[in-house]
Amino acid sequence: MKPIIATIGGHSALQILKGAKEENFKTALICKKNSEKLYRSFKIGDEIYVVENFDEIFDKRFKELRKKAIFIPHGSFVEYLNKDKILESDLKIFGNKKIFEWEGNRLKMFKWLKESGIRTPKIFDEPSKIDRLCIIKFHGAKGGKGYFLVENEDDFYKKQKDKKFDISDCVIQEYIVGTRFYPHLFYSNITKELEIFGVDLRYESNADGIVRLPPRFANDIDLSYVVVGNIPVVMRESLLPEIYNMGENLIKGSEKLFDGLWGPFCLETILSDDLKFYTIEISARIVAGTNLYINGSQYARILYDEPMSMGRRIAREIKIAMERNVMNKIIT
Amino acid sequence: MKPIIATIGGHSALQILKGAKEENFKTALICKKNSEKLYRSFKIGDEIYVVENFDEIFDKRFKELRKKAIFIPHGSFVEYLNKDKILESDLKIFGNKKIFEWEGNRLKMFKWLKESGIRTPKIFDEPSKIDRLCIIKFHGAKGGKGYFLVENEDDFYKKQKDKKFDISDCVIQEYIVGTRFYPHLFYSNITKELEIFGVDLRYESNADGIVRLPPRFANDIDLSYVVVGNIPVVMRESLLPEIYNMGENLIKGSEKLFDGLWGPFCLETILSDDLKFYTIEISARIVAGTNLYINGSQYARILYDEPMSMGRRIAREIKIAMERNVMNKIIT
Amino acid sequence: MKPIIATIGGHSALQILKGAKEENFKTALICKKNSEKLYRSFKIGDEIYVVENFDEIFDKRFKELRKKAIFIPHGSFVEYLNKDKILESDLKIFGNKKIFEWEGNRLKMFKWLKESGIRTPKIFDEPSKIDRLCIIKFHGAKGGKGYFLVENEDDFYKKQKDKKFDISDCVIQEYIVGTRFYPHLFYSNITKELEIFGVDLRYESNADGIVRLPPRFANDIDLSYVVVGNIPVVMRESLLPEIYNMGENLIKGSEKLFDGLWGPFCLETILSDDLKFYTIEISARIVAGTNLYINGSQYARILYDEPMSMGRRIAREIKIAMERNVMNKIIT
Repeated sequence: MKPIIATIGGHSALQILKGAKEENFKTALICKKNSEKLYRSFKIGDEIYVVENFDEIFDKRFKELRKKAIFIPHGSFVEYLNKDKILESDLKIFGNKKIFEWEGNRLKMFKWLKESGIRTPKIFDEPSKIDRLCIIKFHGAKGGKGYFLVENEDDFYKKQKDKKFDISDCVIQEYIVGTRFYPHLFYSNITKELEIFGVDLRYESNADGIVRLPPRFANDIDLSYVVVGNIPVVMRESLLPEIYNMGENLIKGSEKLFDGLWGPFCLETILSDDLKFYTIEISARIVAGTNLYINGSQYARILYDEPMSMGRRIAREIKIAMERNVMNKIIT
Repeated sequence: MKPIIATIGGHSALQILKGAKEENFKTALICKKNSEKLYRSFKIGDEIYVVENFDEIFDKRFKELRKKAIFIPHGSFVEYLNKDKILESDLKIFGNKKIFEWEGNRLKMFKWLKESGIRTPKIFDEPSKIDRLCIIKFHGAKGGKGYFLVENEDDFYKKQKDKKFDISDCVIQEYIVGTRFYPHLFYSNITKELEIFGVDLRYESNADGIVRLPPRFANDIDLSYVVVGNIPVVMRESLLPEIYNMGENLIKGSEKLFDGLWGPFCLETILSDDLKFYTIEISARIVAGTNLYINGSQYARILYDEPMSMGRRIAREIKIAMERNVMNKIIT
Repeated sequence: MKPIIATIGGHSALQILKGAKEENFKTALICKKNSEKLYRSFKIGDEIYVVENFDEIFDKRFKELRKKAIFIPHGSFVEYLNKDKILESDLKIFGNKKIFEWEGNRLKMFKWLKESGIRTPKIFDEPSKIDRLCIIKFHGAKGGKGYFLVENEDDFYKKQKDKKFDISDCVIQEYIVGTRFYPHLFYSNITKELEIFGVDLRYESNADGIVRLPPRFANDIDLSYVVVGNIPVVMRESLLPEIYNMGENLIKGSEKLFDGLWGPFCLETILSDDLKFYTIEISARIVAGTNLYINGSQYARILYDEPMSMGRRIAREIKIAMERNVMNKIIT
């Protein structure tokens, strides 16, 4: 029986469900009351369920849906659903469920990057070692919320006192000055091919707001890095081979550590002016930057002669798996 | 008889006339001598008329055209045509003519926003009340020309002396630090459906030019905010429901105050880092940011399986009105 | 016999070869080992040759290919191939070979601009004349590498001592503060029509990276301008007529100086806040910014009802030349 494609409201749900419909799947959306009207206006959910709390997805009410649907994880999915419940439940996920813990904990994420031979910023394991501008980040995909800069050890402790957090909850990461690139990749666990889809820049509040202020004002404002949008960009073509290699290496690393990575993913990188990529994060699922390309990205256009969003590519992969009867290769 | 779709040269005329042709309308363009060659190169005007002054549109020469054409207003239309003449003339306008005065006067615009329950920056009714960074704006859609920052009362009077203007001609508006989003919406007065099309950022000279200077140079340069282009952006999906609500509220407000708003419009917003939208302006007609999406925006793609620009959507609405014989609902 | 369309790996090769395939040409790519896997993943080269050095293209090995192929020049082509060898060889180039020397030497480039009546920043012929913020550039298309700012004569000599270069190798150019626009134009030497395709902004490391730093940090970092990507933008429509005129004037200037410019080109401009364009460079071939629009730009959409990239437009021109039997008008 043809599965329904389902996800929860937020992040890239519009793209995922539109892509599913373009590949002729039925769709289901679980959303909160305040977003129901929006999602209905876009007409992408054949079934729309309103919940108070996304964890209701594991309740008896959705038993039937869990049986017939494949759930597509995205940033809000990862953030709002209880990871233990995902692992225990009968929810069928596109992608590898084991990845959630490797993506959700920054120390494990850096271990994965290291195992994959991918360059990262320096991580300082204690505040006394800070010898350059650093950015402090917390665990989990919280959309950049709470990140802040520190200049030295004193500055770290001063801000820790203000913000009140446990040192063990944060990662002290070297701040690399350069240009940002968040490439969108898709790896097929069926054909074993890696595809480059597109690239974006994150638009962050207020870090991207203060740049337009006269510098004398900007100095007094605390920078914050809440991701609020995405801006399209293409990369100098001579840099793409390294992105491709990094993608391949990350997949190999994941196969060593936890049975592999497939489907959409993103390496969040900073490019220094001597053209070295530093990977600061991994998103091992569809990223919101792909929302820029719901009608197809520049690079997807090269591979596909029809408008191919990342959401549609996921649905296409499910279709291919059905045809070849290898659903077990893409669902966990 | 099928109407001609007409507009004046500038702002988004290329998009409007291309969209009209895609919906199989005949088109007419009234432009100035210096832009004739450009418009002819794009082959979008079935009839092209050259004028010295856009107000010639009300002359006898264009009597025949006024009879058979529907005029699509845009930013230059609002700026260069005499509003009283528009109201008095037999010019048929797509949209509500009454809106021009509510859009053209900032105090009325803020009254409309307040009536619609939409959050705005604080407005200071006299310079002595300035207690934070403010931006000074003048009435009318002049593409951001003449805006400037003031830090306090003294700074205001100093700059007023330099620039020589009447306090009553300006609005003193709190400067909100955050990220900018200019969402493009379309409301159908026929189906009563609200559609989200896309979002842009304005690219402003020299505010977006000085950001790349070393800060010590940038401090000495007066910032200006002349809109010279637009950059695409998508919004974090969890923010879209509020945009949708703001759109609905603005329509309700317009129905209370002046018989309604329909067709394309834009709420110019700043998003603070605690994720609150502040609306700084309304454009109650097609905005230039939609020029980014002449081949269809990300969100328009979700609703339409063909490339749908805002210009084309307008023409589509006229076509629907013709088919349902309800032209009176969209033309004034 | 139908020619093969060929180019070297890098810059905009993906777009060029995809465009060629869309117009039903066979394609050939000459690339280096490290990029072979990337290009193969995109499936755009019917023949892929790996070389150690791009100048091998002139060797006996490629005699057969040179006979049947038309080579499309791009930024890396201009940078990595020996210009004298291009002129001497039997390589067939789309465009005018004579242009390479006018594009590659900044003094000749400025002569061409002057001859064309196009406004440029002031050029200071010796360091003692520096009376404002200047940017120092070297000859050739090196992707912005090595550019730096100087504030005055002393600053110039100090930096010259650090960086060790010959004054005769650099151009001292007034730094214009404003917004940047890099419009993509195509001129047909067959139909004599000029087409506006799209516009981009260059994304440069680290100049576009430091903007997000608190100004007090940014002051201590040397700015660099290595072009690492491109961001889409549209221009205020009322500015397009001047772009069109500048394009026409540049073509006329090229006809006076060296038998003409045709095919794709770009005027790199800065727009000051009094809306004057200053042209800082010319790229007399396809620019990387067109990679943003592999699935068609906003403006290309107006002229063509199918997705038309600049790469495809080149292939289309070759097809038209074949049909009309005027290949000599486009190949040198």
